[in-house]
Amino acid sequence: MVNISVIGGSKVPNDICEIATKVGKLLAKKGAIVFCGGLGGVMECVSKGVKEENGIVVGILPGYTTKEGNNYLTVKIPTGMGYARNFLVVRAGDIVIAIDGSTGTLSEASFALAEGKDVIAIGDITIDPKKENEGKFFKVNTPKEAVELAFSRLNKEIYE
Amino acid sequence: MVNISVIGGSKVPNDICEIATKVGKLLAKKGAIVFCGGLGGVMECVSKGVKEENGIVVGILPGYTTKEGNNYLTVKIPTGMGYARNFLVVRAGDIVIAIDGSTGTLSEASFALAEGKDVIAIGDITIDPKKENEGKFFKVNTPKEAVELAFSRLNKEIYE
Amino acid sequence: MVNISVIGGSKVPNDICEIATKVGKLLAKKGAIVFCGGLGGVMECVSKGVKEENGIVVGILPGYTTKEGNNYLTVKIPTGMGYARNFLVVRAGDIVIAIDGSTGTLSEASFALAEGKDVIAIGDITIDPKKENEGKFFKVNTPKEAVELAFSRLNKEIYE
Amino acid sequence: MVNISVIGGSKVPNDICEIATKVGKLLAKKGAIVFCGGLGGVMECVSKGVKEENGIVVGILPGYTTKEGNNYLTVKIPTGMGYARNFLVVRAGDIVIAIDGSTGTLSEASFALAEGKDVIAIGDITIDPKKENEGKFFKVNTPKEAVELAFSRLNKEIYE
Repeated sequence: MVNISVIGGSKVPNDICEIATKVGKLLAKKGAIVFCGGLGGVMECVSKGVKEENGIVVGILPGYTTKEGNNYLTVKIPTGMGYARNFLVVRAGDIVIAIDGSTGTLSEASFALAEGKDVIAIGDITIDPKKENEGKFFKVNTPKEAVELAFSRLNKEIYE
Repeated sequence: MVNISVIGGSKVPNDICEIATKVGKLLAKKGAIVFCGGLGGVMECVSKGVKEENGIVVGILPGYTTKEGNNYLTVKIPTGMGYARNFLVVRAGDIVIAIDGSTGTLSEASFALAEGKDVIAIGDITIDPKKENEGKFFKVNTPKEAVELAFSRLNKEIYE
Repeated sequence: MVNISVIGGSKVPNDICEIATKVGKLLAKKGAIVFCGGLGGVMECVSKGVKEENGIVVGILPGYTTKEGNNYLTVKIPTGMGYARNFLVVRAGDIVIAIDGSTGTLSEASFALAEGKDVIAIGDITIDPKKENEGKFFKVNTPKEAVELAFSRLNKEIYE
Repeated sequence: MVNISVIGGSKVPNDICEIATKVGKLLAKKGAIVFCGGLGGVMECVSKGVKEENGIVVGILPGYTTKEGNNYLTVKIPTGMGYARNFLVVRAGDIVIAIDGSTGTLSEASFALAEGKDVIAIGDITIDPKKENEGKFFKVNTPKEAVELAFSRLNKEIYE
């Protein structure tokens, strides 16, 4: 079982949404369990992609109720921790894919790196980890590259 | 979608394990998403039951890796929070079923009640909530009673 | 430095408040740093006692602002975690003193025991830990007994 | 009461340490309660400054024991959450001062901004918040500027 967390902006333009949906589809096809923050934007778009391929996508929600989760989630987990649920999204994944996003996404991506976890980014975010025990940061251009690199970094067979 | 958390001892005798497995089966049949702490004992036994009925069971794990999760889990979520992940198990569920267990289970059950969530217990634990805004505590004798009461309390149609 | 967490009901009668205040005074005199949930009832009464002896009392708050903290706190820490901040109150202390209280207090006390931490109770709560690696549960009748036992369990010199 | 969180690298050169110590001194003189991650580097240097001015400095620690805290802390709070304690450091403060640092600091600073909290940075880190409801990011050159801006942003009288 491979856990992959997908993070990104909660309001995104159509082209970014399409990228996220494609990432979700590719991850589901490869059998990854996908984790996200469960709300809108990249979270919703990636969830849509996973659902379309009958994969499993888990939304780790900021509030106390499943109602705020988007409609594509397989599993909705209320945490009552607000944005602090972001660190749970990161810890859930073996690796993190970041798509676009602002300070919240930056916070999650850099938290992942600080915990020694790799981050693969499509879009604006750039981080330069300096310490040896930090994760590695990669920039890619397409959903296919992101997903293939993720599995490659995890040393898993790519069986698509 | 109904989320039901099942809590209980991490080492249990066979008869308790059978109860937990039966609870897992019944919950899966009714389409509930089942949450637990992901390790052994009641957590493993309930997971086994859910898996046997092809349901979804989520293990919210204390450590940083999916490896510690039992073999029946559909989704494994490392949290790195140690026993503090217990409060996440409780928050994930719309209602809590407690089977046997010791101080850890007592902690989760009373946390649920304090947050206004009902707890249905099979086995030793007894709690007497005193405040109006607390959840209600029920004792039952069988898996069937536990699961039926859970759905009844949630006002969901029982479609078994 | 000794950290002692004091937990208990958020609404308490005068006699319980006086016990909590006395516990706070005795802890401050012995130089303990006192931790509590920062709100009313036992939390406020123990804070008052600590303040009267010029000790340090830390309130770990459920919300996002220091404003909800009682007026006697030296340090107010908003967490935004709701009742889940209870586990932080417990983790902060080397030992836990429980005064009266309902399901919230029961949750904290049993969480402490589950994590291997001793709990000393004045008032209603009774827990019977069964496992070897759990903390020990003590019942006492007076603030003086509670505080002396706490320091004795921590093997600290009592220098009152 | 003003809470100010100071974040930064866990290993820093002498000149950065001196800046952090100076920030600690200035904050203590103004009566702020200072929060940090409780370990080495900027955390230790700022704690030293606060202690030298007899202020209060709180270390929110990643592990389960107070022993890992640096020697200048007034209050040591074990959380058992690992790096996830970073979000508690940020939530504790009314405003955040960032001094140097790598991905961990970047994670905390961007989390603060995402939660609507201002961040004042001395040193390398630069973040560009884009959304209206995010906090504001400021770069300054000296401890004095950082502390004065912090109090000014909080609309507190500067009574140094």
